[in-house]
Amino acid sequence: MLAMVAFGGNALLRAGQKGTFEEQLANVEQTCGNLLNLIKRGYNIVIGHGNGPQVGNVLLQHEAGRKEFGLAALPMDYCGAETQGGIAYLIETAMDRVLARNGIKRNIVSLVTRVEVSADDPGFKNPTKPVGPYYPKEEADALAAQGNVMREDPRGRGWRKVVPSPVPIGIANIDIVKDLAEKGNIVVTVGGGGIPVVKADGALKGVEAVIDKDLASALAAVTIGADEFYILTDVDKAYINFRQPGERALDVITVAEAREYLAQGQFAEGSMAPKIRAGIMFVEHSGGSCVITEAGRLEDPSCGTRIVP
Amino acid sequence: MLAMVAFGGNALLRAGQKGTFEEQLANVEQTCGNLLNLIKRGYNIVIGHGNGPQVGNVLLQHEAGRKEFGLAALPMDYCGAETQGGIAYLIETAMDRVLARNGIKRNIVSLVTRVEVSADDPGFKNPTKPVGPYYPKEEADALAAQGNVMREDPRGRGWRKVVPSPVPIGIANIDIVKDLAEKGNIVVTVGGGGIPVVKADGALKGVEAVIDKDLASALAAVTIGADEFYILTDVDKAYINFRQPGERALDVITVAEAREYLAQGQFAEGSMAPKIRAGIMFVEHSGGSCVITEAGRLEDPSCGTRIVP
Repeated sequence: MLAMVAFGGNALLRAGQKGTFEEQLANVEQTCGNLLNLIKRGYNIVIGHGNGPQVGNVLLQHEAGRKEFGLAALPMDYCGAETQGGIAYLIETAMDRVLARNGIKRNIVSLVTRVEVSADDPGFKNPTKPVGPYYPKEEADALAAQGNVMREDPRGRGWRKVVPSPVPIGIANIDIVKDLAEKGNIVVTVGGGGIPVVKADGALKGVEAVIDKDLASALAAVTIGADEFYILTDVDKAYINFRQPGERALDVITVAEAREYLAQGQFAEGSMAPKIRAGIMFVEHSGGSCVITEAGRLEDPSCGTRIVP
Repeated sequence: MLAMVAFGGNALLRAGQKGTFEEQLANVEQTCGNLLNLIKRGYNIVIGHGNGPQVGNVLLQHEAGRKEFGLAALPMDYCGAETQGGIAYLIETAMDRVLARNGIKRNIVSLVTRVEVSADDPGFKNPTKPVGPYYPKEEADALAAQGNVMREDPRGRGWRKVVPSPVPIGIANIDIVKDLAEKGNIVVTVGGGGIPVVKADGALKGVEAVIDKDLASALAAVTIGADEFYILTDVDKAYINFRQPGERALDVITVAEAREYLAQGQFAEGSMAPKIRAGIMFVEHSGGSCVITEAGRLEDPSCGTRIVP
């Protein structure tokens, strides 16, 4: 049995935390402890993770380094690659400790991962995702003149770069991920949704963009032939009529039901809706099932909301 | 034929450059173009690389981010992991472009790599390698009180953290590197000499240290059973009586001769001497040969200084 597991960068760096190494390690150790439930049930696992808070910090660090020391502030794709290295190291360290404490021998290996998007993706025509530091008007104008799309913050904190959020269409080295996972290695890949690249002159060229990590993980899950796809979040299940009269937690739903609820606007955009879409994508293309739940519930095999064909 | 190739972080970010993405990509594309000579001669290759200038910048960026935005400045091992992600992405991008231009199909894959050192390594008792930003006396004292070893810069620029440079004794996932390389993948590993870790409670725990990238690459070369180990640097060959009367470039030398020249102090510490030691280590433990040369000379199979058993 092969499971793909996706969790957010905020599973490592939580709101209100400074993001010290110790904080992030403690957070990810907790998540890895929960993943142990899958490992004990005999699953091989592949981990995809987010990097929102981490790449946000790296972008700020590059900007601060530019101002303070005159260093080059590197583009977002490079910053994303940096977070893949750092977060993989945190996950490897945490998972090793959890495995050692529980007397389980499993190897963990992490790949730096580029994820291909189409240069024709409509997202490139309409960048919407704000990233990195807030700039005063003059600096924002200078960045805009260099080809960046800048947008004024509605809360008056300044101007920010906005980048597209294109759809992933291919994952570099996913065959190697599959092979390593089937041999029993825990594999970390598509960190932060992957480093976004487009085909150019027969090679892959980085672009400044953010790929949804649940969608990248769904594509990975399909491609490696995962039996199950776990999307870990901070609620136990998906709900309909969430926080309204008639609120109901969803246990098992079909793809058709999931689509219907999506069409009704039952799931919040930027939160549950993209997870449901990633789940549908996986279930439709694989015939497996997708579980959306909290990491802390994984002990119970019937936890969460399960999307089935 | 399997070759391990090591090159420095300054092959990507050269002295006097700001280290923009474009600069680093152009530099590494040149290096990858030179490595094509090995690929065309039928070698499978594994790449180990340094990260001196890059991790120096990351440490400064973390410090600037702490001052400017109150972000946590993460420890050196985490910063090293970040550079592994970033540099691997640069190498993958550059190598892909070089391969595409030359109509050669080869896949490239990069592993985040922890390298084990002994907690009893004498280096930990006597840290000598200055890293990261210069601090004023008061800040240096505060850092020293937190357990850091701080040393005053001889040129009066302030105080700097010094870290140990322990000897690598094991490389995580090196069996996977070997397997991937033997299948024809170009593999990137031991970036920056690897993320230094020690055994603790049955798991691997990061330490702030710098592992010599040539020594880590030599250990990788031995373990994967490389036939040849290439150490790329900025001189064509090793010399005896360098820049003195009787100067002579070395073509082919035995391990015994290399040891003799080392004992005579023929090779500069911090420059050629550690490369010769890494070469000796590889040749003695593998029976293969080690070539120390400039990347630009690789077209000539008899280039550089070759250390043989």
